[in-house]
Amino acid sequence: MMTPIEVFQQKINGALAELPVLGEPAGLYQPIVYALDQGGKRVRPLLTLLANEMFGGAADTAMPAAIAIEIFHNFTLLHDDVIDQAPLKRGKETIYKKWNLNTAILSGDTMFAIAYGRLSQSDPRLLPGLMKVFTDTAIEVCEGQQYDIDFEDSNQITIPAYLNMIRLKTAVLLAASLKIGALSADASPEDCENIYQCGENLGMAFQLQDDLLDAFGETDLFGKKTGGDIVANKKTYLYLKTYEKASVEDKKQLDNWYAQTTNDDDKKIEEVLKLYRKYAAKEETEGLITQYYDLALQRLGAVAVSDERKAPLLELAKNLLKREY
Amino acid sequence: MMTPIEVFQQKINGALAELPVLGEPAGLYQPIVYALDQGGKRVRPLLTLLANEMFGGAADTAMPAAIAIEIFHNFTLLHDDVIDQAPLKRGKETIYKKWNLNTAILSGDTMFAIAYGRLSQSDPRLLPGLMKVFTDTAIEVCEGQQYDIDFEDSNQITIPAYLNMIRLKTAVLLAASLKIGALSADASPEDCENIYQCGENLGMAFQLQDDLLDAFGETDLFGKKTGGDIVANKKTYLYLKTYEKASVEDKKQLDNWYAQTTNDDDKKIEEVLKLYRKYAAKEETEGLITQYYDLALQRLGAVAVSDERKAPLLELAKNLLKREY
Repeated sequence: MMTPIEVFQQKINGALAELPVLGEPAGLYQPIVYALDQGGKRVRPLLTLLANEMFGGAADTAMPAAIAIEIFHNFTLLHDDVIDQAPLKRGKETIYKKWNLNTAILSGDTMFAIAYGRLSQSDPRLLPGLMKVFTDTAIEVCEGQQYDIDFEDSNQITIPAYLNMIRLKTAVLLAASLKIGALSADASPEDCENIYQCGENLGMAFQLQDDLLDAFGETDLFGKKTGGDIVANKKTYLYLKTYEKASVEDKKQLDNWYAQTTNDDDKKIEEVLKLYRKYAAKEETEGLITQYYDLALQRLGAVAVSDERKAPLLELAKNLLKREY
Repeated sequence: MMTPIEVFQQKINGALAELPVLGEPAGLYQPIVYALDQGGKRVRPLLTLLANEMFGGAADTAMPAAIAIEIFHNFTLLHDDVIDQAPLKRGKETIYKKWNLNTAILSGDTMFAIAYGRLSQSDPRLLPGLMKVFTDTAIEVCEGQQYDIDFEDSNQITIPAYLNMIRLKTAVLLAASLKIGALSADASPEDCENIYQCGENLGMAFQLQDDLLDAFGETDLFGKKTGGDIVANKKTYLYLKTYEKASVEDKKQLDNWYAQTTNDDDKKIEEVLKLYRKYAAKEETEGLITQYYDLALQRLGAVAVSDERKAPLLELAKNLLKREY
């Protein structure tokens, strides 16, 4: 038997497959079909549907907005791949690489419009509220991506600035996914705010864990080696925390490694990880993840529905941090 | 004293200047301010406000949607400049050139979201209808741009395919601008359709005239020389019509000129224009412009309001084709 989460995943994939985007010109729509067919666990629309159900809403009411969020998310991935010049994602060629720059830009733009098209099929009574959360969030995600770009060339990044960047780039969309589900079920303003904050904290934990696994995880399913962030000179929380605690001598070492691209990536990863270990960056990050996760649970706890109704969402939250989703 | 059109232009520029887009990160928002401050005649929001007024609507009701359309239009210009690799627009550096590719992509995406943000400030009662026209049109504009890209590498473009491309890329947005004004004033479905068709035909005439001026116009205000489409091997209506009528020998000549980039642009322009003249491409295009313009007037004529109320919109339509707007 399928779990409630699997039932919703199937619904989401069904709705995505039914999108009328197989039209002409093929050069515009084939990349969109490709982008939406990359699998993934559909975490964001799942959050919407689970929140909606938790507050007693009907899945059909929340579905247009849930699908809109998934299309929007995949649109941001598409444009991010261009910006990051990423040739591969999850072991498959990116659209930027498989087609070209212009296709990636234009098919992405079209996906953004299609996302709003789906959203506008929501109950007209709900539409203004949904539009506001959706649009505010879309703008914040762009802001987060811009900060990420800005930080690449900066040596002045503070930990609060980094946390704000990942909040905007990643966490607010998870938060909005939950809030949109709550709005679809006519939840109270207090509950909408609680579930939003639950999602934002969960998103922070999720992203920090992503950073952690990039440094200390096992080689993943698609053969993506760990240390990618180090090779790319990404100043993650692990880096910033280590830097903060490091001796003058070790700071200089970190500066040196991050000031260059080297032919010996393995050596670079090894040396930087050595410093991460020396300053307990892993434990520091795990501590922060736990803090955010606890805050998320606290906010979920404050939501005015029974624990039984919260169970599926709680399960997804747990799985998210176990990386099963 | 200002004309009604000038009054609306001032309102539009005022509303654009008041947009709260001067925030952080500056790397994201400065290009947006720059993009929206490039002047221009604000034709599309003017069409919205004039249609709205023609049907007896209050300007304030239509203003959020009018501003949304102008922001959307400038977003498409921004991404088009990347796709066309255009260094200059109206004598000013494009964002792609002044900043960089990533900024152009990301600031453009943000403008698209801001456009929807403005649109969502419309009367909630009107929002679902406005969203539908706006979104359908946005998707069509992307389709038109994709066809334009596809046509660059094709030698099989038919005249109907070309006309469909400019319909999608240019005409439907003028049509939607008028329809959105009509919807804002609660015009009847018949009048909404008539004004939409009026705008579509006007848009066709407008784009064909643009093509005509590129080939036969005077050097413009910003020193843009005529013949740019010929140098870029753009297969406009002038080219396609000439090709259709040309002798086998002249077809071969056209093929040759358009198969190459030459160091002697002036020679290329001269030779292609010679063929345009030989086959009366100018007169053919003027004839088609007149046909579309007449269709536009016919649709405006069918709108169920007094001629007096139609006068300002008629004036704008005339000016559009005189290139004063």
